[in-house]
Amino acid sequence: MNLLEGTLPKIFPQDHAARLKAKERLEQLVMPYWALAELMDLAVDLAGMTRNPRPEFAGKVIVVMAADHGVTAEKVSKYPGAVTAQMVHSFVRGQAGINLLAAQAGADVIVVDMGVNADLLHLADEGKIINKKVGLGTGNIARGPAMSVAMARRSVESGIEIANLLGPQYDLFGTGDMGIGNTTSSTAIAALCTGGDVAVLTGRGTGLNDVELTHKVSVIRRILEINRPNPKNGLDMLSKVGGFEIGGIAGLILGAAAQGKPVVIDGFIATAGALIAARIEPFIRDYLIFSHRSAEPGHQAMQETLGCRRPLLDLGLRLGEGSGAALAMPLVSSAAALLSRVATFAEAAVSEAGE
Amino acid sequence: MNLLEGTLPKIFPQDHAARLKAKERLEQLVMPYWALAELMDLAVDLAGMTRNPRPEFAGKVIVVMAADHGVTAEKVSKYPGAVTAQMVHSFVRGQAGINLLAAQAGADVIVVDMGVNADLLHLADEGKIINKKVGLGTGNIARGPAMSVAMARRSVESGIEIANLLGPQYDLFGTGDMGIGNTTSSTAIAALCTGGDVAVLTGRGTGLNDVELTHKVSVIRRILEINRPNPKNGLDMLSKVGGFEIGGIAGLILGAAAQGKPVVIDGFIATAGALIAARIEPFIRDYLIFSHRSAEPGHQAMQETLGCRRPLLDLGLRLGEGSGAALAMPLVSSAAALLSRVATFAEAAVSEAGE
Repeated sequence: MNLLEGTLPKIFPQDHAARLKAKERLEQLVMPYWALAELMDLAVDLAGMTRNPRPEFAGKVIVVMAADHGVTAEKVSKYPGAVTAQMVHSFVRGQAGINLLAAQAGADVIVVDMGVNADLLHLADEGKIINKKVGLGTGNIARGPAMSVAMARRSVESGIEIANLLGPQYDLFGTGDMGIGNTTSSTAIAALCTGGDVAVLTGRGTGLNDVELTHKVSVIRRILEINRPNPKNGLDMLSKVGGFEIGGIAGLILGAAAQGKPVVIDGFIATAGALIAARIEPFIRDYLIFSHRSAEPGHQAMQETLGCRRPLLDLGLRLGEGSGAALAMPLVSSAAALLSRVATFAEAAVSEAGE
Repeated sequence: MNLLEGTLPKIFPQDHAARLKAKERLEQLVMPYWALAELMDLAVDLAGMTRNPRPEFAGKVIVVMAADHGVTAEKVSKYPGAVTAQMVHSFVRGQAGINLLAAQAGADVIVVDMGVNADLLHLADEGKIINKKVGLGTGNIARGPAMSVAMARRSVESGIEIANLLGPQYDLFGTGDMGIGNTTSSTAIAALCTGGDVAVLTGRGTGLNDVELTHKVSVIRRILEINRPNPKNGLDMLSKVGGFEIGGIAGLILGAAAQGKPVVIDGFIATAGALIAARIEPFIRDYLIFSHRSAEPGHQAMQETLGCRRPLLDLGLRLGEGSGAALAMPLVSSAAALLSRVATFAEAAVSEAGE
């Protein structure tokens, strides 16, 4: 059996009994009823995901999936494609935003070459990145498909392999991405999955001006017309308008969900990966934690389509790299710790309401 | 000279030169322009507050000010007044929400008895709390003033003393509160400072039902009619409708601002303290960081009256204790670290936009 087909049957909805036990304890904590509101909702979710009424997260990791995009030939980004590989080097040297933010969250950073258009084998040989290269960047999706269906499957299965590889060390995953041009792919996926208008969903990515934004909208419309992806088929969408890193993120989510581990979803690109994963296995939505609402206008519609709880942060972030996931991880840890490290009214001998 | 009058001349607006230097560096970080958005805005503020373009926060503290309120005789809270002292014991034993959340943020918890209606001297003697007791709870503000003007001054000066005492150890302050009945005082202050309608501003506090909420609104209206506080005079408002812990928070803010140190403001009660402080010295607003938007309906209007940046979190919290401040502290640390621990494009040798 293939890795993908072997993984899907292991993905179940959240555990109701663990949720119920967590909720019962939270209701008795030495504070007014549900006074920590959405943090408590999250704590119940974490219990349900992990099937443990008192979950703890000892190992945290941000997995940064990197790949290039042929669509950069259409001038949809302010930055040249070469920046993808340059940023991988920055991640490896610990110089980038995600290095700092993950360190602040007590999370490791694992960089995966899903399809960077550069020879990075020396970094993999030195153990500084993981090599899962599916190709040297995708095809230009404004002129044809991003990749073959076999390559789409390989991207997703590589993500599952990463989740399985990291499973013994980590119990909380965060997604990250690096790929110049990948907001274009992600917006196409957003349009397919939300049914929204491309002009409304498309954003400035790394900082386009008005003229460049209008151009990006027309390129994304052409991408959808030429490729005609099936919005109900995750691998079809991925092969036609996706990216290798987006497939990798989808696979990471599937692999984590199969282990009963929560995945903190970063921003716009990561949510596109989650939409692909959800078209492959809808139950994965029970394992997603939205870290933030990005500045990209399509993000809210994508999050609402997935239908999970509203994001933890809303700071106008648009960096990617896993930065939002890292910033939200301390909130996730705190939510979990509510279940094991706060006393109940009875334990603390404090009078309850109305006594 | 009194401590209060001696402190005010040390409070200056943020330092423009440090802000400018911080902004220049942030613009060169190896990421798209201002991609971390509100986190970067906060980093610039931190530079301006500390007068240091690369601030670091080694010592973090949540100061929990506790006091009782005579207005609990009017049945404005679901909990009996005795809970204030019981919760102080829970804080000391490390059993409460704030203990966990502060620990997650790497912050110490300092508990101050500003006016709890119980003998807590043994805890002070054992060094577990700081004794600044101004009285055994305030007067019932539905029937007269909370305290004398001298006591109001003493509350505020006690807060300044706490800031000065903790100054050598801590460079990032967070406010916390414990005081059954204190949303009633805080709503009265909110109505005075925002000009808003009491019925709109009043919330359910620790969990009132509709009938109890209507009663609370009528009590707050009576409080304002009977006391007629001057909304332009912080000490007058505090003496008439305040609380000892609200005065303590106001003083802590004044003392921190005089040291050029940021104060992470918790929720509804802390913001009432900030409003009192701002009526005493408007420049303090340059040192406030709003941690979150509380579930209390008046909170947004209070925050907008103070006019600082919008809050970092919006999770429906309504616990107090400093819980929101603790949850936001990791974001503050991360914002500061952007200035010292991320490379610039030149340092990382990555191509810039449009190259």
